[in-house]
Amino acid sequence: MKTVRGFASATVGNVACGFDVLGFAIKEPGDEVILTLSERKHSSCPVTISSISGDEGKLPLDPKKNTSSFVVLKFLEHLRAQKGIAFNGHISLELKKHLPLSSGMGSSAASAAAALAAANELLGQPCTKMELVHFAIEGERVACGSAHADNAAPAILGNFVLIRSYTPLDLIVIPPPDELYCSLVHPHTELRTSFARSVLPNEIPLKMATQQWGNVGALVAGLLTADYPLIGRSLIDVVAEPKRAPLIPGFFEVKEAAQRAGALGCSIAGSGPSIFAFSSSPDTAREAGIAMQEAFLTSKAKLPSDMWVSPICREGARIL
Amino acid sequence: MKTVRGFASATVGNVACGFDVLGFAIKEPGDEVILTLSERKHSSCPVTISSISGDEGKLPLDPKKNTSSFVVLKFLEHLRAQKGIAFNGHISLELKKHLPLSSGMGSSAASAAAALAAANELLGQPCTKMELVHFAIEGERVACGSAHADNAAPAILGNFVLIRSYTPLDLIVIPPPDELYCSLVHPHTELRTSFARSVLPNEIPLKMATQQWGNVGALVAGLLTADYPLIGRSLIDVVAEPKRAPLIPGFFEVKEAAQRAGALGCSIAGSGPSIFAFSSSPDTAREAGIAMQEAFLTSKAKLPSDMWVSPICREGARIL
Repeated sequence: MKTVRGFASATVGNVACGFDVLGFAIKEPGDEVILTLSERKHSSCPVTISSISGDEGKLPLDPKKNTSSFVVLKFLEHLRAQKGIAFNGHISLELKKHLPLSSGMGSSAASAAAALAAANELLGQPCTKMELVHFAIEGERVACGSAHADNAAPAILGNFVLIRSYTPLDLIVIPPPDELYCSLVHPHTELRTSFARSVLPNEIPLKMATQQWGNVGALVAGLLTADYPLIGRSLIDVVAEPKRAPLIPGFFEVKEAAQRAGALGCSIAGSGPSIFAFSSSPDTAREAGIAMQEAFLTSKAKLPSDMWVSPICREGARIL
Repeated sequence: MKTVRGFASATVGNVACGFDVLGFAIKEPGDEVILTLSERKHSSCPVTISSISGDEGKLPLDPKKNTSSFVVLKFLEHLRAQKGIAFNGHISLELKKHLPLSSGMGSSAASAAAALAAANELLGQPCTKMELVHFAIEGERVACGSAHADNAAPAILGNFVLIRSYTPLDLIVIPPPDELYCSLVHPHTELRTSFARSVLPNEIPLKMATQQWGNVGALVAGLLTADYPLIGRSLIDVVAEPKRAPLIPGFFEVKEAAQRAGALGCSIAGSGPSIFAFSSSPDTAREAGIAMQEAFLTSKAKLPSDMWVSPICREGARIL
């Protein structure tokens, strides 16, 4: 019996202009996955879930349907098929969820990344982190029907990750500037990714697209040159935010509050309902976060919320 | 009587994925503008054109219609209106065109930038280079009906320039990696910008747009981190190139030839018909350029061409 405890933190996909191609990881909060290896088989499935906490009973216990166990199964399949490593034992999985579901905080990706980090450690690190990303992306398909990488990749790799291409998968890790802090506010309401996706148009005006890719290029330049004002000016999403903002009660008030408090910029975390802001000092990030919470509370929907202030995580999924 | 000789070089707009938001300058070839200042007025217009060479008589001699004189008039207007500097003399302008017209090599922007550099020097440098970009963009409106900046900005500022936003104008100068070389091939045929623009759709699929902005972000990252393979992988234009390539006889053969010769990537320069390729050494750039010329010649249209190999220009418009 050998036990390994994996951890992966919350991630924010899209990052305003970087719709579907950019994401970053913060240091905390995150999900924990504890894997226990025994040498002999317990059941027909090599992975079983022993317990899940923190999900209010919402996540499936079927190892083929739960994201965290599903990605471990994919990982084992890959070892057998691609690396000739047969696994004849059994893995028992315990999931400790600290991230809210359907929050825009990359909850499913964090569980998958934590499970993969633990599984890779448990079996002597047969895979690189870049390889693990592939399985984490497969987990996203199970969790929300679309194999997107903007949470899965930073959950594994940390930092900002730009997805240049899906076929083949081409990920560019962009280290964060030292003084960049994220305020992440999660209002107590859910917004399903599939619904937030359904409000987006299939086609967009070329002029709008041009504006968006100007901002994407500028945001990458701002991150790589630690130009905080440029990061702020580039955090503009003319494509998804205008369609999704009305789905988040109080969005406009919250965004205004963040900016008034001195944040560089503010937008929807993933497909929402969480909202993130960037600041160039921890104090400003805390003030922005508090102002955002107050704005949620005093807006029409009077939403209570949770709030975290964190630098960008450089480490990615890790062993505790 | 005081004479100043300004020079600005060819520029390549779009740079594959960076449609309408990215451009760069090469070191040569370029246009020359010689300005001669006399203290007293000659005519009702403070700028007149004394001669134009190299244009086969195609450019207008009317100072309000010729790009190079028009931008000097705009510059003088700005000095009077914004800086309280009245100009009561006369400027005689001589334009030596070395860049082919309607070539996709930023011919009008080079003339405008050379004229502005000279005018600014002639009057004691009252404007910054960034201010001069505004007048050069106005020149593009006169030259081709649309006030785009992807040639004008690098013609003045050198380097790569990313246009994050037009209103307000927000330009990000991206210095090139040291070993990046451009092969620029101009086939002897013309393609009007307005026609090349007319083949583009007003709307594009969101998925296509997402792919494009993934490449824009990656190209900026590649340039800023001198990651040559990444620059190559990012030089993909899924929006404009597929529509415009059929307007350039031999495009596909030329692109394939550049890549076979070892170029990092290859695409249309601006709206064409010139084609550029990037390489990570001057030798490869020369081989790619020669291969591209051969491909133009042996393609169905059997087009002769001119070819230049150049590093990226860091200096921008200058005084000779």
